[in-house]
Amino acid sequence: ADVKKIAVIAGDGIGPEVVGEALKVLKKTEELFGYQFETEHGLFGGIAIDEKGTPLPQETLDICKKADAVLLGAVGGPKWDNNPKELRPETGLLGIRKELGLFSNIRPANVFDCLKEASTLKPEVLEGTDLIVVRELTGGIYFGEKFRREGAQGEEAVDTCVYNVAEVERIARQGFEIARTRRKKLASVDKANVLETSRLWREVVNRIAPEYPDVELEHILVDNCAMQLLRRPSSFDVIVTENMFGDILSDEAAMLTGSIGMLSSASLGEGSFGLYEPVHGSAPDIAGQGISNPIATILSVALMFRLTFGYAEAAQVIEDAVKSVLDAGHRTGDIAVDKSKAIGTTEMGDLIIAAM
Amino acid sequence: ADVKKIAVIAGDGIGPEVVGEALKVLKKTEELFGYQFETEHGLFGGIAIDEKGTPLPQETLDICKKADAVLLGAVGGPKWDNNPKELRPETGLLGIRKELGLFSNIRPANVFDCLKEASTLKPEVLEGTDLIVVRELTGGIYFGEKFRREGAQGEEAVDTCVYNVAEVERIARQGFEIARTRRKKLASVDKANVLETSRLWREVVNRIAPEYPDVELEHILVDNCAMQLLRRPSSFDVIVTENMFGDILSDEAAMLTGSIGMLSSASLGEGSFGLYEPVHGSAPDIAGQGISNPIATILSVALMFRLTFGYAEAAQVIEDAVKSVLDAGHRTGDIAVDKSKAIGTTEMGDLIIAAM
Ligand SMILES: CC(C)[C@H](C(=O)O)[C@@H](O)C(=O)O
Ligand SMILES: CC(C)[C@H](C(=O)O)[C@@H](O)C(=O)O
Repeated sequence: ADVKKIAVIAGDGIGPEVVGEALKVLKKTEELFGYQFETEHGLFGGIAIDEKGTPLPQETLDICKKADAVLLGAVGGPKWDNNPKELRPETGLLGIRKELGLFSNIRPANVFDCLKEASTLKPEVLEGTDLIVVRELTGGIYFGEKFRREGAQGEEAVDTCVYNVAEVERIARQGFEIARTRRKKLASVDKANVLETSRLWREVVNRIAPEYPDVELEHILVDNCAMQLLRRPSSFDVIVTENMFGDILSDEAAMLTGSIGMLSSASLGEGSFGLYEPVHGSAPDIAGQGISNPIATILSVALMFRLTFGYAEAAQVIEDAVKSVLDAGHRTGDIAVDKSKAIGTTEMGDLIIAAM
Repeated sequence: ADVKKIAVIAGDGIGPEVVGEALKVLKKTEELFGYQFETEHGLFGGIAIDEKGTPLPQETLDICKKADAVLLGAVGGPKWDNNPKELRPETGLLGIRKELGLFSNIRPANVFDCLKEASTLKPEVLEGTDLIVVRELTGGIYFGEKFRREGAQGEEAVDTCVYNVAEVERIARQGFEIARTRRKKLASVDKANVLETSRLWREVVNRIAPEYPDVELEHILVDNCAMQLLRRPSSFDVIVTENMFGDILSDEAAMLTGSIGMLSSASLGEGSFGLYEPVHGSAPDIAGQGISNPIATILSVALMFRLTFGYAEAAQVIEDAVKSVLDAGHRTGDIAVDKSKAIGTTEMGDLIIAAM
């Protein structure tokens, strides 16, 4: 039988709770569709710092490398915020991206009908907003040389932003390919009027664009994009951009949907391998209370089914189940209008499974 | 008599029209307050490329250097967009900042009551939004070494982001000082979990913070700031950040006010010297039609009065005049609900002068 291996990294804060519900959903698909999953758990982030002295233990990396996909909860928390760099959860995050070659971060930002009101944008502006940010994830200023030195003016710090043609080309192709499966519009974001890496970026995008004649390409400067996301969010389909710009714009885009607690993301490498996680953080303030919202993590499983396993039908079943539970009015505290009627993490998970 | 020298750079597109109205306002203050201004005009941007073969002619730079302040319209347009780097308006903009030592860009983003509806944010979210972005303007990745090279993977592009302690300290102090004159809250934005320049930034901000015990300091990561600007814009007072982050966040902040066509900005150096300009661009599509909105440029004169000349009373008179004209219902096309009732550029200027 075709057994799929999934590395499960629950992480910190609410990570274990939300991942727990996602695993129940996974199990349910085994029953419904006859799939077989083999899960192996690994320590990562703050808990790995506490138990193993490093945010990304080799053992965890090995589990991921053997797997077909990784399901990640969330990492980080105030406990580790003032640690030295090597002992911080973020360092583990950057490490796992690089080690697993996850060069492409896919963040859909769509509006859940029932959460339209949660956005700070006017509903008529938000109407029809459904975009994907494709962010380059293993290059740029995140991974270039960084150091301190004594300059003419005293101590200075240096970060280096580097992109080569191949790195730009593979992420640009991702953008075009994804746009092709959607509304066929690609916005390539750069700062070509200032940065050399952006000029290279734009050259490469323009060079390959003729191979995707069905996709309408727009170049947009990052500052302008930050504005246009606010002004005309629904006009965007796929946005492709470099690591640092993607970090900022994907968070802006997610927040404007009002649905940030419900959004999932994929980090992909060559081939079908991918790491899937909710966009939201580890929410240490509500961890352990059983009140967190597992939907974004459950939808991360659906994304994994679509992008890594090609289980489109099951993905649809999960997504439909989430929708029907929300349509029936069930809400966790974060998305409830009437907080007194909010249900807990496991209740939400159970309802979704029942609806599948 | 105390004659103030103002270098006037009308620039491209609607620049000359809006600057024309601002100069009329300047003249009016001479009558009302007995001020004396000496203006000298310089070519800059696209028009300088066309007439002098460079976006920033030495002559223009000399005029600016001899002046007490610079009034700038706007530069750029599609005509020059595909020029080589040395022949692009932006290159002139970066050049003038560096040459005049304008290390601090001050961008107030406040909501004009009459334009509240123009924002895509819900009015209740926008309520009370009145913030200033203080952006470092002559350092960071904008001015670090940039080049192409042959790497192991083929051609690559490199940008370098550098900050020294002194550069961070002077802009951080600006942030603290400005916060002091306002609601006494400073948000320092960085990406200290990834960048070495951001770690230096945060260290320096923390080191000088005890000298401003009356200012409440918050450190916020740039991606989170992009989100919080959408979620709780009114909670921000002064935001201080480095060049690239400031470019993105100040545009996001300006757009969310809905008042982008009305916002002015100052770029300051050591001492009282400053360059003042509207936040909006050169709008080549409507240039020469006499329909552009001169208010942001007129308010730039008010800002110049406050920050460079210490003419607070006259600044107030200009600002009040703008407000009263708007309150009386007069609108240029860009801000008119009923476009058929829109007035032109010179009419708007004349009304403001009459109200002074
Ligand atoms: C935690 C941080 C290093 C990370 C990033 O900047 O990539 C996060 O903001 C994200 O977007 O996943
Ligand atoms: C035109 C460009 C170089 C400039 C910048 O990025 O600084 C502009 O966006 C600005 O904010 O003044």
